[in-house]
Amino acid sequence: VRFLDWHLERLVTGCERLKINLRDVDPLRLELRQAAAAAGEGLIKVIVTRGEAVARGYGISGTEVATRLVFRYPLPPDNGVAAREGIQARVARMRYGENELLAGMKHLNRLEQVLARSEVPAGDAAELLVFGSSGQLVSGTMSNVFLVQGGRLRTPRIDRCGVAGVMRRVVLHHAALAGLSAEECTLTPDDLAEASEVFVTNARIGIWPVSTLDGRALNVGAVTRRLQALLAPMLENPVDAPGHAQ
Amino acid sequence: VRFLDWHLERLVTGCERLKINLRDVDPLRLELRQAAAAAGEGLIKVIVTRGEAVARGYGISGTEVATRLVFRYPLPPDNGVAAREGIQARVARMRYGENELLAGMKHLNRLEQVLARSEVPAGDAAELLVFGSSGQLVSGTMSNVFLVQGGRLRTPRIDRCGVAGVMRRVVLHHAALAGLSAEECTLTPDDLAEASEVFVTNARIGIWPVSTLDGRALNVGAVTRRLQALLAPMLENPVDAPGHAQ
Repeated sequence: VRFLDWHLERLVTGCERLKINLRDVDPLRLELRQAAAAAGEGLIKVIVTRGEAVARGYGISGTEVATRLVFRYPLPPDNGVAAREGIQARVARMRYGENELLAGMKHLNRLEQVLARSEVPAGDAAELLVFGSSGQLVSGTMSNVFLVQGGRLRTPRIDRCGVAGVMRRVVLHHAALAGLSAEECTLTPDDLAEASEVFVTNARIGIWPVSTLDGRALNVGAVTRRLQALLAPMLENPVDAPGHAQ
Repeated sequence: VRFLDWHLERLVTGCERLKINLRDVDPLRLELRQAAAAAGEGLIKVIVTRGEAVARGYGISGTEVATRLVFRYPLPPDNGVAAREGIQARVARMRYGENELLAGMKHLNRLEQVLARSEVPAGDAAELLVFGSSGQLVSGTMSNVFLVQGGRLRTPRIDRCGVAGVMRRVVLHHAALAGLSAEECTLTPDDLAEASEVFVTNARIGIWPVSTLDGRALNVGAVTRRLQALLAPMLENPVDAPGHAQ
């Protein structure tokens, strides 16, 4: 399972922050390896819920035990065009609400992502970039976002909203190993307008360059290509990947 | 079913805003009446989901048809002490994120309410009052909130976050009918600190005065008592209630 340790690390952290009693994560780790072995190539989705409640309402009793669900899907068809030629993206009108207690988590409250995604048909934008209510760039609806400005790699901080994507972490990790200057910072609409390269990431797609942003053509540039090349072996062979337990 | 029309009105509006295809609401109305007739006294909870998706991801195909679920619960024990003597409440440390596209809806993304509620055990606070990320008072975790200042009734606007509670609407409606000055406005921590009366509302509890706020004793005053008296017949006999179809 690609980047399994980093996925589970985020899951465990998220459960701790939400006071979800996941107990030992090792049974889930084993289930995922077994599901992956049975699937060959495919997608696995994990949902952890707080578990059965003792009463109605928003209160937590502290006695709930998490329920885990593991779903297996065939790998969606991908002819590599998006990674090679880039995607059309748009800036969403909707802005994400901000709550530091939820920032970074991949939780299931995803109404904002659904609403942002519904602004534009998939044929008009493979992804939408979304700002936060304070005006800073956050992410896509299903991806993290990176900009290249003056040769420097930059990605939004995820301390107010957004998801700490595993592929975001992989990109930051390998950029650092390769000596590429990379920083997490606050990014404005001007930063986005002035970026020489823009790309989005998630664990399924890897890196998708943005070749058109709100109708403006963007260069699929050297930094994006270099990162794609650095990550390619890992996406093909998970054993070489960071976050992969030996 | 108490205030059935107003509950359904909010549900229909919420589905429209979320692009959930509920189609005709009348079958649900009928189901609720039947469930209520079978239950006698009790709680009914309705959940509407967008329905089965044709694909993974956040995109809406437009062909989904909503699923509705109707749950019936016994009425929780209530000895009337909270309504009579008031409740202990606290101000939550957590603040709600703000998104005008979600404001007012009773949707199912309730992680913030769960987190706020988990700050304090139920024994230490029957409700927590929550501010928004911009600093304005929003609501409780499961209730709307009203203040009395200089004899005037005031409740937070719900244009950035919060739920358009049916009991909130009932209170505003009957305050107006009774000639009580009532307004929806932006309320600050100072407003809360200076309020002579504070109470919270929801469709189940009616009006609960706040008698202790963060340890400070509050008067259960004349405006709160007058509103409780105005609403009492309606809570006992739904046929007299607004939003009740004849």
